[in-house]
Amino acid sequence: MDEITTRHNEKMRRIKAARDEMMKTKTEEKGLIMVHTGKGKGKSSAGFGMIMRCIAHGMPCAVVQFIKGNWDTGEKTFLRERFADECRFFVSGEGFTWETQDRERDIAAAQNGWKIAKEQILDPEIQFVLLDEINIALRYDYIDIDEVVEFLLHQKPAMTHVCLTGRNAKPELIEAADLVTEMELLKHPFRDGVKAQKGVEF
Amino acid sequence: MDEITTRHNEKMRRIKAARDEMMKTKTEEKGLIMVHTGKGKGKSSAGFGMIMRCIAHGMPCAVVQFIKGNWDTGEKTFLRERFADECRFFVSGEGFTWETQDRERDIAAAQNGWKIAKEQILDPEIQFVLLDEINIALRYDYIDIDEVVEFLLHQKPAMTHVCLTGRNAKPELIEAADLVTEMELLKHPFRDGVKAQKGVEF
Repeated sequence: MDEITTRHNEKMRRIKAARDEMMKTKTEEKGLIMVHTGKGKGKSSAGFGMIMRCIAHGMPCAVVQFIKGNWDTGEKTFLRERFADECRFFVSGEGFTWETQDRERDIAAAQNGWKIAKEQILDPEIQFVLLDEINIALRYDYIDIDEVVEFLLHQKPAMTHVCLTGRNAKPELIEAADLVTEMELLKHPFRDGVKAQKGVEF
Repeated sequence: MDEITTRHNEKMRRIKAARDEMMKTKTEEKGLIMVHTGKGKGKSSAGFGMIMRCIAHGMPCAVVQFIKGNWDTGEKTFLRERFADECRFFVSGEGFTWETQDRERDIAAAQNGWKIAKEQILDPEIQFVLLDEINIALRYDYIDIDEVVEFLLHQKPAMTHVCLTGRNAKPELIEAADLVTEMELLKHPFRDGVKAQKGVEF
């Protein structure tokens, strides 16, 4: 073995030892409150990637989509047509808020979504709940942030995972969460005249 | 309607008009080079969320997983067992690099993965290719970044989407990409002693 290989192998051995040591302390399992926020792409996609993992592991799960009601998204078709038994799929809104232009109706839709969300989270069958784009409803105060945080911290069953997505997550939610990822936009093709495309955006 | 509702509806109408105007210019369709990088969670999950969308839309796709070979991940089981016709799934490595502690073998595995990746990208049947964790192989120069960039820019079929994930994306790749998202870690439960969990991490 040459020197670079020897050094590399030694370094990797040290990292492995440190990681093994660290992972020994990671023994707790608990239902996580996860938040995907930021202006970048991937917030909902990552939520649906976890839904795929849940289905793979036989963990019953549920999706409540806020706001994006009218879009005929791939994930909706996919989950409703092929995995209706494994994953419950609810839509609370009717298109983006700027499509409906009716605040009263948006509030009613968001409130209805939150009611469904609570039922799913409390359901002992369900192990993972994705609240897709709920942050938009929270941002406009269509749903009360204090009520959501209180519910997640004190009424959510201990082992149930909940993932909340959407830009502009409120500070209260970030504070309450176990895991927060900010998707930052470094580059976006819309800027160069490329439209939203099948498979990528929906 | 009260004043706040009127103001809100007016604001939403303006946003919708501006967005409709903007979207008129978004007419181009093209195969995108997408990068998910950063220290946060969601890079691979978002890639698999897009794979779900491709399957939903009947777009044949492929995954090449670099490095994470030995892990029995939910996504691997799910795609191999249920969607072998819709999505080809390849694994190039054998566990994380710090698991193998053998640089020569890691290089061979990464090179093999890149060979498969090129074949899948060039295959006219395939519309979307996910190169999961390839950035780790690029970071250690197991695969030559210039060759990858040259291939993506000049040999990739125009309509084929490629998504490359992993921390520490090289600047050359970011420069070449159409869409780059940096997943930033705001909070992670490992810090509080929670281990990697089914459905969430794998």
